[in-house]
Amino acid sequence: MIVGVDVGGTNARALLVDPETGSVLGRHRTSSAGDGPTLVRSICVLVEHLRAEMANEANEANEANEANEANEANKANKANEAVDAVGLGIAGLADRSGTLRYSPNLPHLTEFPIGPELANAVGVPVTVGNDATAATLAEARLGAGRGSDHFGLVTLGTGIGTGFVLDGHLLEGSHGFAGEAGHMVVDAHGPTHITGQQGPWEYFASGSALGRLGREAAAKGGFDRGLEQAGTADGVTSHHLIAALSDDDADAASIFDGFCREVARGVANLVVILDLERIVVGGGLTEIGEPLRSGIDHHLGDLLLGAEHRPGVEVRLAELGDDAGALGAALLAAGDA
Amino acid sequence: MIVGVDVGGTNARALLVDPETGSVLGRHRTSSAGDGPTLVRSICVLVEHLRAEMANEANEANEANEANEANEANKANKANEAVDAVGLGIAGLADRSGTLRYSPNLPHLTEFPIGPELANAVGVPVTVGNDATAATLAEARLGAGRGSDHFGLVTLGTGIGTGFVLDGHLLEGSHGFAGEAGHMVVDAHGPTHITGQQGPWEYFASGSALGRLGREAAAKGGFDRGLEQAGTADGVTSHHLIAALSDDDADAASIFDGFCREVARGVANLVVILDLERIVVGGGLTEIGEPLRSGIDHHLGDLLLGAEHRPGVEVRLAELGDDAGALGAALLAAGDA
Repeated sequence: MIVGVDVGGTNARALLVDPETGSVLGRHRTSSAGDGPTLVRSICVLVEHLRAEMANEANEANEANEANEANEANKANKANEAVDAVGLGIAGLADRSGTLRYSPNLPHLTEFPIGPELANAVGVPVTVGNDATAATLAEARLGAGRGSDHFGLVTLGTGIGTGFVLDGHLLEGSHGFAGEAGHMVVDAHGPTHITGQQGPWEYFASGSALGRLGREAAAKGGFDRGLEQAGTADGVTSHHLIAALSDDDADAASIFDGFCREVARGVANLVVILDLERIVVGGGLTEIGEPLRSGIDHHLGDLLLGAEHRPGVEVRLAELGDDAGALGAALLAAGDA
Repeated sequence: MIVGVDVGGTNARALLVDPETGSVLGRHRTSSAGDGPTLVRSICVLVEHLRAEMANEANEANEANEANEANEANKANKANEAVDAVGLGIAGLADRSGTLRYSPNLPHLTEFPIGPELANAVGVPVTVGNDATAATLAEARLGAGRGSDHFGLVTLGTGIGTGFVLDGHLLEGSHGFAGEAGHMVVDAHGPTHITGQQGPWEYFASGSALGRLGREAAAKGGFDRGLEQAGTADGVTSHHLIAALSDDDADAASIFDGFCREVARGVANLVVILDLERIVVGGGLTEIGEPLRSGIDHHLGDLLLGAEHRPGVEVRLAELGDDAGALGAALLAAGDA
């Protein structure tokens, strides 16, 4: 069994995974706040919880085994096995030694050797990779990337995470840092982002950006329903926008259309550089569903140079939801890249 | 023996290549003007020229052979071989069937099946690939890409051509269209380029862009030497700028510094997406030499997010000059990708 952990800016989510089938046998989450040693302790607790649950299940299943229930007996056999390794998917530049070199979302962890420290604490090998790269591997093996040798995962959340399968290979890059396309500058004279860059893609097209577009519109009288629900323009979030969108609010539809264009702008860049045949859209915003998929698809046709001479690029929604990062981290730890 | 042909917007250059060593045994060039059938005839003439030269060399060398000159005898053995295949590197989107789907620089060839037509005309197999991808393969095997599994070639000419070796593989993409990073939008509200896009990288950072920067500066009184030499601001080209630069003209140095920043801006995007460890700079502008290399290097350090936490990205000048495209096309045809 492998434990896969997805360390985001707010939470760490752990899954107990059977690496042969990709089945999830248990799950836990905790806060990812605090410095490196604190996070190592938090992850140890997650792993211990999963180990304990596994032992409980094994006991129950052993009893079931005695009662001759074949399915449960099988589960028992799996659960009797130990945790062999831990895979960690983490937002930022994690190098191959397991040190997080740089992470705008986890600033307390910069230059912290989380891989070696965690391995020491849990007593099994730890593999560290980028969270979006891990999620890409999971979607490739078990989700919306299946059947494609040339796709990009684009997760729209606090920022934009990306990962790529190119010519059939999961792209890792020279130091394991590949796939930070959210930091690609698309508007060189545009607004300054929290990264210090002017006009990177994620400024315009992340989940956070959708909330900002809602606030800006509300402040200018362009999103009355949002203003009404939130009380103040400053209080408008992407949730107000998504709710209004599902009620066919015309303002929300217009704001959302502009947002989809910004997502498509970066996707068009990725397609001209990498010749992708498929884009898998993941992250929190996938709760919007088909309107998100078709909105990106529509604007991509317009923004992609030479689109009329290329086979179409398929836009799909991710299939593994919040599990993708931790599941992929487990697959990375199992050596499945 | 393989004939590699590089079809650019103005010229078609052909090399006779020994695919085992990459040695160039002969070369010819012709105009690439005209429609598809005209270009096929022009390339046939190039191939016939090289075949004839090879036969001549074989005769001479056979005589030398009789005179017991070992080196020449070896050449004779090589030259006695036939042309086994033709590789074509072409600016634009060439699909795997050998049809040029789209090319802003060769508009007369759009949707022309140049591969099959040429194969029919020359009577040997023809492999068609993108010119920059071909040049990347040549630099990888024989030039400035040697020793790196993660590099990008960026050629600065009329436009910007790019190609990539990622995790040790030449990137081809889902349809053979990968590496069109010159069309990556970096200034979404910027000027409209000949492609119809607003603010693509090549608008700011190609060889053509350097000439435009010189003209713009001359018109505003910021490049007096260029104005003097060209007669009018409109007459200023990148050549005036390069000449002034080599004479330490302060205006030229300032214009050139701004240009290097625009090159570095796109390179920084490619590095965050792909985690490249090396950038190989090719194309006509490499005649500038070290100032070009160090100028890009300097601004990359400033523009690359998290540069202080990453191992440095090495910037090198290409080594194969104008031969890279044709040489790489020959290697593609030899199945060396």
